[in-house]
Amino acid sequence: MKIIVLKFGGTSVGSLKKIEKVVKIVISYVKKKYKVIVVSSAMEGVTNELLLKTQNIAKNFPEEEKDVILSTGEQIACALIAGKLNDLGYKSRSWLGWQIPIITSGNYSSSRIIEIKKKNIVNYIKKGGIPVITGFQGINNDFRITTLERGGSDTSAILCAKFFKADKCIIFTDVKGIYTTDPNLTKSAKKIEKISYEEMLEMASLGAKVMQPASIQEARLNRIEIDVKSTFSKKNGTIITKKRNILHKNTIRGISFTKNDAKLTLVGVKDKPGVAASIFKPLYENSINVDMVVQNISPVGRETDLTFTVKLEDLSKTRKLVEKNKSIKFKKLIINRNVSKVSIVGVGMITTPGVTFRMFKALAKKKINIEVISTSEIKISVLINKKNLKKSVEILHQEFKLSSSL
Amino acid sequence: MKIIVLKFGGTSVGSLKKIEKVVKIVISYVKKKYKVIVVSSAMEGVTNELLLKTQNIAKNFPEEEKDVILSTGEQIACALIAGKLNDLGYKSRSWLGWQIPIITSGNYSSSRIIEIKKKNIVNYIKKGGIPVITGFQGINNDFRITTLERGGSDTSAILCAKFFKADKCIIFTDVKGIYTTDPNLTKSAKKIEKISYEEMLEMASLGAKVMQPASIQEARLNRIEIDVKSTFSKKNGTIITKKRNILHKNTIRGISFTKNDAKLTLVGVKDKPGVAASIFKPLYENSINVDMVVQNISPVGRETDLTFTVKLEDLSKTRKLVEKNKSIKFKKLIINRNVSKVSIVGVGMITTPGVTFRMFKALAKKKINIEVISTSEIKISVLINKKNLKKSVEILHQEFKLSSSL
Repeated sequence: MKIIVLKFGGTSVGSLKKIEKVVKIVISYVKKKYKVIVVSSAMEGVTNELLLKTQNIAKNFPEEEKDVILSTGEQIACALIAGKLNDLGYKSRSWLGWQIPIITSGNYSSSRIIEIKKKNIVNYIKKGGIPVITGFQGINNDFRITTLERGGSDTSAILCAKFFKADKCIIFTDVKGIYTTDPNLTKSAKKIEKISYEEMLEMASLGAKVMQPASIQEARLNRIEIDVKSTFSKKNGTIITKKRNILHKNTIRGISFTKNDAKLTLVGVKDKPGVAASIFKPLYENSINVDMVVQNISPVGRETDLTFTVKLEDLSKTRKLVEKNKSIKFKKLIINRNVSKVSIVGVGMITTPGVTFRMFKALAKKKINIEVISTSEIKISVLINKKNLKKSVEILHQEFKLSSSL
Repeated sequence: MKIIVLKFGGTSVGSLKKIEKVVKIVISYVKKKYKVIVVSSAMEGVTNELLLKTQNIAKNFPEEEKDVILSTGEQIACALIAGKLNDLGYKSRSWLGWQIPIITSGNYSSSRIIEIKKKNIVNYIKKGGIPVITGFQGINNDFRITTLERGGSDTSAILCAKFFKADKCIIFTDVKGIYTTDPNLTKSAKKIEKISYEEMLEMASLGAKVMQPASIQEARLNRIEIDVKSTFSKKNGTIITKKRNILHKNTIRGISFTKNDAKLTLVGVKDKPGVAASIFKPLYENSINVDMVVQNISPVGRETDLTFTVKLEDLSKTRKLVEKNKSIKFKKLIINRNVSKVSIVGVGMITTPGVTFRMFKALAKKKINIEVISTSEIKISVLINKKNLKKSVEILHQEFKLSSSL
């Protein structure tokens, strides 16, 4: 059996008209002799609307019941798809998480799929049926409905591809694929043909919003090749695959960036062992993610400056925690909201010397000051003044020839 | 264990504010030391909205998938109730049809509950939990979601009362109880304290819209006493119970009426054996319900007039079927849309002579012409001109002293 998993996101099933379009896509793959498994999200906006109900009725609405409510979104979308397929003469039915079952563990509202039982779905496919499976949900050992993290329908699809040994997993969404950088920022952005899991992970967590990092990680671990493409275009999308399937024509695959960072600098920190830990401990305890960190070597040897970034939404909380922290001494706290992080991402970086140099030189040529630097094996990030964001992205896009075919 | 079933209808849970009110009612019964089982409908309007989606996406939307979609309404309402109870410190959870399970048989969209498995709910109650059970739904032998007929949540509640051996079953709704006649028609209408299942059945199918006949029949068969009362008033409602629990102060319990009937008269029908069957066969085959029927004895002995009533919505179909019916001969078809059926209902009627006479005399006194009559053991119905409806109901209400305490 040549099995294919087709996953449709919330915007793809955002209206009855769009669901009819989705059904046409499903039928086109049936006609190509695939055994199709459909995985669907809830109709766009529905999950948020349901969430609002739980927030408006109770201060502490229990997660268990929240999952019962949120799971109805996918239930409705899947039944509409299956119903329309029937109407057009195709054998199809909705399969809810508990009917398959999709077994999860962990907390409500952030469960993880640990197994998808094969029997029911495989039997149904063998009988010529098109199963339409609810994304984002399952049941736990208590026989109760659970949901995954937001955006978890991608993970559902990837694990369906794993458990049902699919040849392919296509994620249909509202963009045409993964781009070298945000097409809204610069017209030179270009669709990427193939990208590695690792590069995609860096792109996703740094700002490209197409797929959740957790689902890409799941695909990477299970070696599931993903094809990301638009529901509303026939053109090829982007394939997310193993590193070695990728031609290294280009060292750098893409440029991602953020707009919601804040930089904090503690000036004149008494430099003694463990001082950094003392600063970050209360932040960690309050679930504040510290991103870039740099500690200057002070000339005197007794005092140092420490700079780090957090998300803008965490800034005021961070500021309070730092200011009331009695275990550290410093002269001044400088805060800068006007920063952006620009990152170049590419698995080819490791084997290509001089990438860092080229990046810094290109920015220097345009007199763009780099405030903080951080690097990993496949990415280099720099913190710059937000007003230079567009210019920086464009100059780097040009420097690494991302507009040429990938 | 003193178990009580509290059932809330769609208007009772029609908004988050109203659900908070429902939760208060539940808590008040917990405080009276009852073990409470809650059964809820979907929030008002939700089921129709979902139904519309299925109708708008496909001409022949399959019933199986319709049930998957419609069942989400109760799922959400129950989880909201359970969630709010938790928020206020009470142990509660939603129980969906398939989790209990509530086992149904028959067709999708009009299934019947054949069993409610006791174990899960009884264990949960013993642990001090308040189960909130989805009305209107269950699962069948194929492990798929089914729904009952519209209004089936009442049946769910009544069968919960049966299977969990409840002491009481209270149906909370948006009216204060069952009235002697429609309070919107005449101010003299009075709330009935107690009514028998049989009387209620006649009242329900004749126009009182508080409960579906099927659910009353289920209560009658299982001898479940029902208390119908308003969610929004502390006053006593109406108790629906066995005949022998009712004091027969009054012969007549109530007056019901319809406004959507049409009368058809076939003039000059060739009177030969089986002519009535020939007329009604095509109507039966097209699911048209014929209500009142009267056949005049013709003076000539060879021709007769035949009159019957159908629902207004079936009139044009009926007319066509009669006109193209080649197995009957008649001179003229007269149609009258301006008719209403008024019925007096009461179990005391059987043992009280003269009720028919009193009814006819009271109407005659006001010069109200009776067009058709039909009777059963506990009701007498007359067809009158619609313009006389209000006057008829009022005169009968007075004649049978329905305004005095019941």
